[in-house]
Amino acid sequence: MAQYLRSVVRPAERLLKPLQFPHKLLMGPGPSNCPPRVLAAQALPLLGHLHAEFCSVMDDVKAGARYAFQTANAVTLAVSGTGHAAMEAAICNIVEPGDVVLIAKNGHWGARAADMAARHGADVRTIVVPPGEVFTLANIAAAMAEHAPSLTFVCHGESSAGTMQPLEGVGELCRARDCLLLVDTVASLGGAPFFADALGIDVVYTGAQKVIGAPPGVSPISFSERAMARVAARATRVRSYYFDVVELANYWGCDAGPRRYHHTAPISSMYALREGLSMLAEETLEVCWERHLRCARLLWRGIEDLGLKLLVENEDARLPTVTAVVVPDGVAWKRVVEHCMSKHAVEISGGLGPTAGKVWRIGLMGYNATEENVRRVLKVLQEAITACKM
Amino acid sequence: MAQYLRSVVRPAERLLKPLQFPHKLLMGPGPSNCPPRVLAAQALPLLGHLHAEFCSVMDDVKAGARYAFQTANAVTLAVSGTGHAAMEAAICNIVEPGDVVLIAKNGHWGARAADMAARHGADVRTIVVPPGEVFTLANIAAAMAEHAPSLTFVCHGESSAGTMQPLEGVGELCRARDCLLLVDTVASLGGAPFFADALGIDVVYTGAQKVIGAPPGVSPISFSERAMARVAARATRVRSYYFDVVELANYWGCDAGPRRYHHTAPISSMYALREGLSMLAEETLEVCWERHLRCARLLWRGIEDLGLKLLVENEDARLPTVTAVVVPDGVAWKRVVEHCMSKHAVEISGGLGPTAGKVWRIGLMGYNATEENVRRVLKVLQEAITACKM
Repeated sequence: MAQYLRSVVRPAERLLKPLQFPHKLLMGPGPSNCPPRVLAAQALPLLGHLHAEFCSVMDDVKAGARYAFQTANAVTLAVSGTGHAAMEAAICNIVEPGDVVLIAKNGHWGARAADMAARHGADVRTIVVPPGEVFTLANIAAAMAEHAPSLTFVCHGESSAGTMQPLEGVGELCRARDCLLLVDTVASLGGAPFFADALGIDVVYTGAQKVIGAPPGVSPISFSERAMARVAARATRVRSYYFDVVELANYWGCDAGPRRYHHTAPISSMYALREGLSMLAEETLEVCWERHLRCARLLWRGIEDLGLKLLVENEDARLPTVTAVVVPDGVAWKRVVEHCMSKHAVEISGGLGPTAGKVWRIGLMGYNATEENVRRVLKVLQEAITACKM
Repeated sequence: MAQYLRSVVRPAERLLKPLQFPHKLLMGPGPSNCPPRVLAAQALPLLGHLHAEFCSVMDDVKAGARYAFQTANAVTLAVSGTGHAAMEAAICNIVEPGDVVLIAKNGHWGARAADMAARHGADVRTIVVPPGEVFTLANIAAAMAEHAPSLTFVCHGESSAGTMQPLEGVGELCRARDCLLLVDTVASLGGAPFFADALGIDVVYTGAQKVIGAPPGVSPISFSERAMARVAARATRVRSYYFDVVELANYWGCDAGPRRYHHTAPISSMYALREGLSMLAEETLEVCWERHLRCARLLWRGIEDLGLKLLVENEDARLPTVTAVVVPDGVAWKRVVEHCMSKHAVEISGGLGPTAGKVWRIGLMGYNATEENVRRVLKVLQEAITACKM
């Protein structure tokens, strides 16, 4: 063997051991378990990132995202990153330094969007209601009148608190004021009725690892014509090359030009997303929404039957996909979570951000949204609480 | 079934068809084929993004990246995106508006880095040699003296031209001038000797889908202490939340604090990257480097035996992983590429950026770097050229 100029440092021993871990039932706010068909798709051989067959997979993903979002937007694609990447792609393309951005904050995701918008130079204004509550249309109208934002952010499924924000009328408010409407549907899409075009939404994104049932790593996003006109009228360049929607739209075949190499898409993750979207299309949105609501109602009743309280009192404002359960006095929330995992390999999750330490969060998403799983998680939770009374 | 406020638009028919495509031998500049063990890892069940078992997978990836880069840098991790995401993560964390950034440009990747640095407000200066040539240490020293950059970018494996940039001495130049050294090893890492620490490199990144043999979607990156000190001393916030290395370092357990939720890592892709890095550690870097060089030499001799010319005349400056073959007069390069694919399901690639239309590029990376594949690609290329003489 050749002598190299330098000597090579040996690898850590841990790398030489086989990869292994237990199978878990992921009943937290995501990722949730993937259907076997989706996992199997990831074991398919790789294609090149501009091969005709791969472009066809991308076209399937576009069609699936359009269906899931209920939009006809030409610029509908998947960002090559996780849900946070899609949030950043939305914000960095729309926001320019000095723009007034209104954030409706009733949990963790509003706070995260505010941070991202501030990093991109926005003048961030917020309206706030406590976690577990949602905004009225009057709340939003008043804030828009006060702040005159050029972009308003609303989280449809606030997974930190288990709320689902009603969106009827918000799009009209924004259009009347030349404001774009950005909606986060990471935790909600496919699990509750949503109609991007009919609701007048300008930018919307979701994650792969929730209802769609694919692993995290690629995230559907859609931009309206109004949103793309705003991008075209920017005074400053989009800071990010990786998330530049004009470049992405070309690579995804959303514009009239031939597809150019922009970056190498995550090939295997795209297969998985395609299969997840395909399964959603086969089931149909209506049936999938009904399934999630039916399972959620079963869970909510079961939780109340255990003598526990749901954080979101108003049933109409509850997110079917993520349920927040108030941790009762005298119970160590973390020990309960650990009990469920160590004894049963079942994940339930603690709170996040403003709800940390105050709630457990139980996810019912995609493949995991079944009555059998509801019964299992209720049984495991009951046992854990009994075992962990302080 | 409930009546919804809006009516649902049906999905496109294409989504309801099964996912299928041919197996291909990917002998372009990447992605290359993954070993079966890596693909199988992606079919393993999902874990949560902060589960102990998943943190252990991340720790394996850190160890593997440290080994592959030959670095002891604490902040060594994988960005949740493809190679372009790693390039952007490197640039957006280091560059502040007004910084002078020197880009050594001898192909597509220098141009791409220049674009990204400009988007982040850098005052970009370039030194240029034609594709197929590399920079001398004197070239780089002179440019540094002229421009006094705070960051210098060099591409180790310039895959658009098939060159490998010698790096000996560049780190010392940078240290003498308080300049950070950023090196792109997307196309080269694992395929040729590389020693990040010994060479005095401050930021280095690579892709998963080249020698490491995992699908694209997660990209190893490493920051030296000098680089992290520069990040800590920034006057402005890092624009990107998703790529903020201080946040990433915490999530990856590279700092002293408990791991916080930053984003949901691409779970399946991380399994695959772990297995790819593990296989590299098992083979050892020295053996892997030798294998790539042996196969490359076989390819180079075979190309010359076909009467074809290599773009890079100086053998010491040739990249073992990607070989650029000059398209001879009277041959339609694109028809050759199409012939190889349509008749044999073998990918060879055209040029990129400044080499587009002028060269074919043949990749020998990771799992695909075998003598059998060299013989196959030579045979297929010879047949295609004969068939496509104009």
